[in-house]
Amino acid sequence: MQDLVLRDDTGHVARLRLNNGARFNPLSLEMIDALADAFRLIASDDRIRAVILAAEGKAFSVGHDLRQMQRARADDDAGRRAYEALFARCAGMMQMIPDLPQPVIAEVQGVATAAGCQLVASCDLAIAADTARFGVNGVDIGLFCATPMVALTRAVPPRAAFEMLVTGDFIDATRARDLGLVNRVAAPADLPAQAMHLAQQIAAKLPAAVRMGKRAFHDQLRLGLSEAYHHAGGTICENLMLPDTDEGIAAFLEKRRPRWAGD
Amino acid sequence: MQDLVLRDDTGHVARLRLNNGARFNPLSLEMIDALADAFRLIASDDRIRAVILAAEGKAFSVGHDLRQMQRARADDDAGRRAYEALFARCAGMMQMIPDLPQPVIAEVQGVATAAGCQLVASCDLAIAADTARFGVNGVDIGLFCATPMVALTRAVPPRAAFEMLVTGDFIDATRARDLGLVNRVAAPADLPAQAMHLAQQIAAKLPAAVRMGKRAFHDQLRLGLSEAYHHAGGTICENLMLPDTDEGIAAFLEKRRPRWAGD
Amino acid sequence: MQDLVLRDDTGHVARLRLNNGARFNPLSLEMIDALADAFRLIASDDRIRAVILAAEGKAFSVGHDLRQMQRARADDDAGRRAYEALFARCAGMMQMIPDLPQPVIAEVQGVATAAGCQLVASCDLAIAADTARFGVNGVDIGLFCATPMVALTRAVPPRAAFEMLVTGDFIDATRARDLGLVNRVAAPADLPAQAMHLAQQIAAKLPAAVRMGKRAFHDQLRLGLSEAYHHAGGTICENLMLPDTDEGIAAFLEKRRPRWAGD
Repeated sequence: MQDLVLRDDTGHVARLRLNNGARFNPLSLEMIDALADAFRLIASDDRIRAVILAAEGKAFSVGHDLRQMQRARADDDAGRRAYEALFARCAGMMQMIPDLPQPVIAEVQGVATAAGCQLVASCDLAIAADTARFGVNGVDIGLFCATPMVALTRAVPPRAAFEMLVTGDFIDATRARDLGLVNRVAAPADLPAQAMHLAQQIAAKLPAAVRMGKRAFHDQLRLGLSEAYHHAGGTICENLMLPDTDEGIAAFLEKRRPRWAGD
Repeated sequence: MQDLVLRDDTGHVARLRLNNGARFNPLSLEMIDALADAFRLIASDDRIRAVILAAEGKAFSVGHDLRQMQRARADDDAGRRAYEALFARCAGMMQMIPDLPQPVIAEVQGVATAAGCQLVASCDLAIAADTARFGVNGVDIGLFCATPMVALTRAVPPRAAFEMLVTGDFIDATRARDLGLVNRVAAPADLPAQAMHLAQQIAAKLPAAVRMGKRAFHDQLRLGLSEAYHHAGGTICENLMLPDTDEGIAAFLEKRRPRWAGD
Repeated sequence: MQDLVLRDDTGHVARLRLNNGARFNPLSLEMIDALADAFRLIASDDRIRAVILAAEGKAFSVGHDLRQMQRARADDDAGRRAYEALFARCAGMMQMIPDLPQPVIAEVQGVATAAGCQLVASCDLAIAADTARFGVNGVDIGLFCATPMVALTRAVPPRAAFEMLVTGDFIDATRARDLGLVNRVAAPADLPAQAMHLAQQIAAKLPAAVRMGKRAFHDQLRLGLSEAYHHAGGTICENLMLPDTDEGIAAFLEKRRPRWAGD
């Protein structure tokens, strides 16, 4: 059996690839587990400082594996327990991305629909080919994209998200950038190089500062102003106590390059 | 007495029209009650799958009925109880829109100010004539648009909302689209047809899926990530148990049109 | 010793200027205290109806005073208590801005980085020279901008904020406007006049209405819809009970200018 998620490391960057391009990279139970396994390994891999999530083939991902899902209807409960387990497992995998210590960049070379669009929206950053398209179009087959909506409504303005959800209409990469779902748009031929460039730019920062920062980013987002400042104040003081941060600031004041322990 | 809110049904779409165009459709107590009555009827009308909220005359709505409000100052409490009742009633009517099972599209043919702008911002979607304008300009007459602000700040970015609220400046339809208040902009002559097209597109989806989805959309918006996934996971599993959704997915996999019970 | 914050009043507008342009207006402990003192005076100055926060020199502000911060490392706790005190004091000063009764407009003539960018994001409104640039680039010297992030993520969409925080990349004034960090962009020569024009426009409104409105704006932003309406309903009823608001509405209905007590 082929590996459903491939991993190639370049320096401090891990590049994952969904590897079922022939079937447009459906998020089957096996693909969900393969992604979760890959994230688990990266979470404890101190060498890795940034992650790219890319895909093989024409599509980035078309979402859940509908054939696999339909087979569960033969169960004695018509699939209910299987569906509950599937969506709990998928939501758990999606939430591993903000919980991962390293920033994760979606590299979107093709169409991303339903849970495939959720996967893009769950990454910290996204860069898309100008030919990529995004949709949460389950409503077209009678299945409202309720779980993709959770990630989507936390990345784009509410009324634009609602329009996508009830019309099933796709948006292109430029509109995705205007809405904030995607950070950058690239020519298809340049996409992998631009994603790698962004990942390496992040990997060149002090890793401990990026890790503290990513955790604080997600922790403080939904807090009230004064609780958020209390939380972020704790983070920046911890960051300041790092010897490498002392060196980073000293080097800046002395107009020289820092000599960081990890470099 | 003329009906303050007219209703015309086209297939599964109900089109409401504010019908006091000669006075620019003020949200008098009577208009608020007429809208609430219309929404109540639609909420329990299973034939209706999408709603358009349009208006007669040059203006969409100029907000509260200031003449009616000023008359309450003759009360023995200088109007306080009347104002409290008015704003409670109006807020209740506005909140009926997200609570309605069917998506509601504002069709904005003219100016929408103060509570008229709130009405647009309270709808799930909005489509505006390119000549339409939007303002929360109560501050110009000494009455800060505090209640319109509630809907506005949930539709557009905070600093753009604050600018509109303290300057009283109007924005045009293009700016309203850039800010996320409006989904689409149309030529005035095309506006009703485009609003109807959007409504019919939504009405062609499986109604139960749209209803579950709209409810989940509003329920999960302000939850933390894991609570939101728990809620949305429940919704998508319920959606999957519908026989029509089984048929919708099967039809998609077999590359044929679904045969839905309700069609 | 020079005054770190200058103040000039023009009519009902107070214009503050960060006055350490030779050092790019660092937010030293002394600058933080000088700003807090200036805000405290304005908070109780009923004559002032709008505030401009501008800066002398080429930069708006480059953030915390790194030289001063490095000196604290000689303390017996390597600076920890000093850093905790610094960030508590700075967060307290930043939060004075939304708490101030008067709207505050950042007038950004040059680069605003780290806590300097936080200061812009903490103001209610911002107008920038088209040459101004914005960054939260502490990550470049090993210090993630955790506290600036609190203000930034409440002004701009999450993924754009995250990109700035982990890359250290700067954005220009046009991009800052597209993201919602800045309300308006001006030619450098026009910037002070445009900021003053905006401040005077706000100062011409009924001050009590603007004050009630600003407080309600911040109070209701993070509430659920029905709690927000309850809060804002209380505000608009209080606003209506003001004699000047009675006069403002009456004047509007009679098509004449209002005669407000404070004018």
